[in-house]
Amino acid sequence: MENGIFSNPLVKKILKRYEDLWALNYAGAVMAWDTETYMPEGAIAERSLVFGKLSVLRQRLLLHPEFVDLVEKAEKEENLNDYERGVVRVLKRAIEKLKKLPPDFVEEFSKTVNESKVYWRKAKSKNDYKLFAPYLEKIIELSRKRAEYLGYEEHPYDALLDYYEEGLLTREVDNLFSRLKPRIKSLYKRVLDSPKFIEKHPLEEEKYDVEKMKELNKFIIKEFGFPFNHGRIDVSAHPFTIGIGIKDVRITSRYAGIDFRRSLLATIHEFGHALYNLQIDERFIGTPIANGASYSIHESQSRFWENMIGRSKTFIEVYYDQMKKFLPFLSKYDVLDIYRYFNLVRPELIRVESDEISYHLHIILRFELEKSFMENSVDVNELPELWNSKIEEYIGVRPKTYSEGILQDIHWAQGSIGYFPTYSMGTILSVQLAKKMESDLGRLDEKIVNKEYDEIKRWLKEKIHRWGSVYPPKELIRKVMGEDIIIEPLINHLENKFREIY
Amino acid sequence: MENGIFSNPLVKKILKRYEDLWALNYAGAVMAWDTETYMPEGAIAERSLVFGKLSVLRQRLLLHPEFVDLVEKAEKEENLNDYERGVVRVLKRAIEKLKKLPPDFVEEFSKTVNESKVYWRKAKSKNDYKLFAPYLEKIIELSRKRAEYLGYEEHPYDALLDYYEEGLLTREVDNLFSRLKPRIKSLYKRVLDSPKFIEKHPLEEEKYDVEKMKELNKFIIKEFGFPFNHGRIDVSAHPFTIGIGIKDVRITSRYAGIDFRRSLLATIHEFGHALYNLQIDERFIGTPIANGASYSIHESQSRFWENMIGRSKTFIEVYYDQMKKFLPFLSKYDVLDIYRYFNLVRPELIRVESDEISYHLHIILRFELEKSFMENSVDVNELPELWNSKIEEYIGVRPKTYSEGILQDIHWAQGSIGYFPTYSMGTILSVQLAKKMESDLGRLDEKIVNKEYDEIKRWLKEKIHRWGSVYPPKELIRKVMGEDIIIEPLINHLENKFREIY
Repeated sequence: MENGIFSNPLVKKILKRYEDLWALNYAGAVMAWDTETYMPEGAIAERSLVFGKLSVLRQRLLLHPEFVDLVEKAEKEENLNDYERGVVRVLKRAIEKLKKLPPDFVEEFSKTVNESKVYWRKAKSKNDYKLFAPYLEKIIELSRKRAEYLGYEEHPYDALLDYYEEGLLTREVDNLFSRLKPRIKSLYKRVLDSPKFIEKHPLEEEKYDVEKMKELNKFIIKEFGFPFNHGRIDVSAHPFTIGIGIKDVRITSRYAGIDFRRSLLATIHEFGHALYNLQIDERFIGTPIANGASYSIHESQSRFWENMIGRSKTFIEVYYDQMKKFLPFLSKYDVLDIYRYFNLVRPELIRVESDEISYHLHIILRFELEKSFMENSVDVNELPELWNSKIEEYIGVRPKTYSEGILQDIHWAQGSIGYFPTYSMGTILSVQLAKKMESDLGRLDEKIVNKEYDEIKRWLKEKIHRWGSVYPPKELIRKVMGEDIIIEPLINHLENKFREIY
Repeated sequence: MENGIFSNPLVKKILKRYEDLWALNYAGAVMAWDTETYMPEGAIAERSLVFGKLSVLRQRLLLHPEFVDLVEKAEKEENLNDYERGVVRVLKRAIEKLKKLPPDFVEEFSKTVNESKVYWRKAKSKNDYKLFAPYLEKIIELSRKRAEYLGYEEHPYDALLDYYEEGLLTREVDNLFSRLKPRIKSLYKRVLDSPKFIEKHPLEEEKYDVEKMKELNKFIIKEFGFPFNHGRIDVSAHPFTIGIGIKDVRITSRYAGIDFRRSLLATIHEFGHALYNLQIDERFIGTPIANGASYSIHESQSRFWENMIGRSKTFIEVYYDQMKKFLPFLSKYDVLDIYRYFNLVRPELIRVESDEISYHLHIILRFELEKSFMENSVDVNELPELWNSKIEEYIGVRPKTYSEGILQDIHWAQGSIGYFPTYSMGTILSVQLAKKMESDLGRLDEKIVNKEYDEIKRWLKEKIHRWGSVYPPKELIRKVMGEDIIIEPLINHLENKFREIY
């Protein structure tokens, strides 16, 4: 795969060898997509064996002494260009993480997580925390071990954060969230106290035709320019995006038959993720930098499309007539009704159903608990009460069941401790980006009115997408924004938006 | 994967190492299925790179000196049980074939074939043989080379036949087909001369609702017991079956919107293939014997369900009322009309559209040409004329275009010389099997009337399916039938059936 951006002979050797790993990752992605969409149910046990084997094979190729040696030599090379440095950095990071974890530990972790997910599902559906508690205890214990194996300078949680967000420190999240929390809390209180506050919106109860909703979702992402010759949209229980390759990026959405904003906004969210993968420099095909820069930067892309475009009044104005064709009940409502429905703020126990304001409180709660897992030994039997009192304090409602409390997310069940903060960070970044984009291109509203999505996409490609993971996330953010992550744009955006609505 | 049927320590070591190859094959199968069904078009170039890389990786693992050494040592072991011997035999065969072909040759062959398919498609759609001729010439030349590399005792074509049908010799095919040809020819002539001969059937022109046809196909294979928790049916241009794993076997069918027997019989045909894979002993999961025994035995399974069940009068009688629900136009026709429509014999240029009798003449023609490719150098410019005069002699019509003559099949374009004979052999075997089954279980007609498909499936599982590729095909046939492949059952079946119709 000669492409002119890699010239260092060592890096070229590394890339040649890496192609096998790339192919294995690609095949794994096709299987992962299939598993969530079309795979017949009874195939899962056999397929799990395949996933297991391929992951061990990948590990063996990545840790092959000759390969590791090449990467370590390349690290000492001077005069590498940015692309080449990116390749070496990404591979070094992957190798280091793998090398530090003993195979026995990896196996135990993976086994625990696989069982844990099964019991989490049972526990959630039966509202029986006791079924899941022993697994959560084990996962916390293993995560602490993991942090020790991986190493850290300041805080054991750093080791886990870094997995999702290269170089992110607990101290930084603490700092960011301690500034975010009071601002969000006061904003949230203002809305709840507003005379315009409503508990429910009639549009939440409107039923839609699933086939028509699928067409609407397709129509909207087609408007945004989703390239159907390089992607698909399918159905799955939980919406997701998967970049099989740069030339094959697939999204899914969900269809409950009621409360259409959930399906539409999920689709727009996933479109944002997909666009990132689709716009990576195609000369990176077959290399380790053909991925997004980090979880929070990926989330900034999905949140940009979801919140800054999909939840905007302009978007609803522009597509109101079209939406009515797919959803005839909309004739009973005007643009403002829909806008308020898309931006309803209220005490909500479930993170994924929460609004743009209180969402951050859900994340902060999880961050605080995770941080404490990693600092002190916890009694898992006390966790539900801790959760409930925190959520009551932050959101103002108390879960009546475990399922709408501590059991709601799959993350801990699958061992993903350290992931949650990237959701809030991505959202914060999405507003920073929007502001930066507006200062370069002019008002976003006008772009939507004129359907100048190409300009938006070109900007995102140029500033972020095309770079794949050439740069570490902090560096990329500084390059694009000329500043680090800051909360003011988000707070301003929320204040302006919700002052008008409430 | 401990399963109690493998106890020899060498074989167990081999199987442990083989698991990576199994996982790669599984992943490759998921990708192959996806490529033909849901993959967005523009993904093909990137994906081809992945297929290429994975095939080289597979080759490297299979030819790893330690692995080859284990297999060669195991070959000398005494006291291996049948399963273990099967494992060693299958792996030895794969290793030998790979070892004998120089990497340069493999690459040239694969490159030629990939280009050739593109030009064959163009040539076929433009009816321009000249576009394809140079590729066909190259493929014939490379196939002769391939035979020399692989080696043979009697005839270079043996080397190619063996690829699809372990141990099959040109002499054996010659022998079988020279007995088959006159019998089929005279039977065919009798039908064409019959006063009941018709050129067209009105049902061929009946248009169907594609969604209803999909439902009918699903309904029928559900009747046969297709396990939808371990399989799917989708749509593709050319129907196929893919055994991703024993627990995930998928079929496709085609829907032209007219001439429903094609869609239904294709579905039933693919069901037969799928059932074979689904009923392989599940203790073989992860091993090299978890596949069918050969191409002709696989085809015997699809042909059994297609011809012996799907084209039978009893099947149509039993499902006539149900079929009418999906295809309302059937009310204008009675069972006998449909039966004649399913079994219409007439001069037909296209192999895949030909009837149960003349099908074999299409195959014999191809066999004769392939054999001559391998014996003498041929002038590809003379081939179309050779094809046309042969088909006119055998079938009684002469192609007006290349597309309905020499360009109709993809096989040569993809380098599959030696494949065609297995189609006829599979069909011959399917009748032998049916007779053997009837002598064990009683009349097939009665099984269909009583919908005792479980008995049929159990018999097929016990006799053939569960064995996977434990035995070489000839040995398996002898075990099941107590005899080799013979044409008499086929001839009797055709004579009885078509004597009644014509």
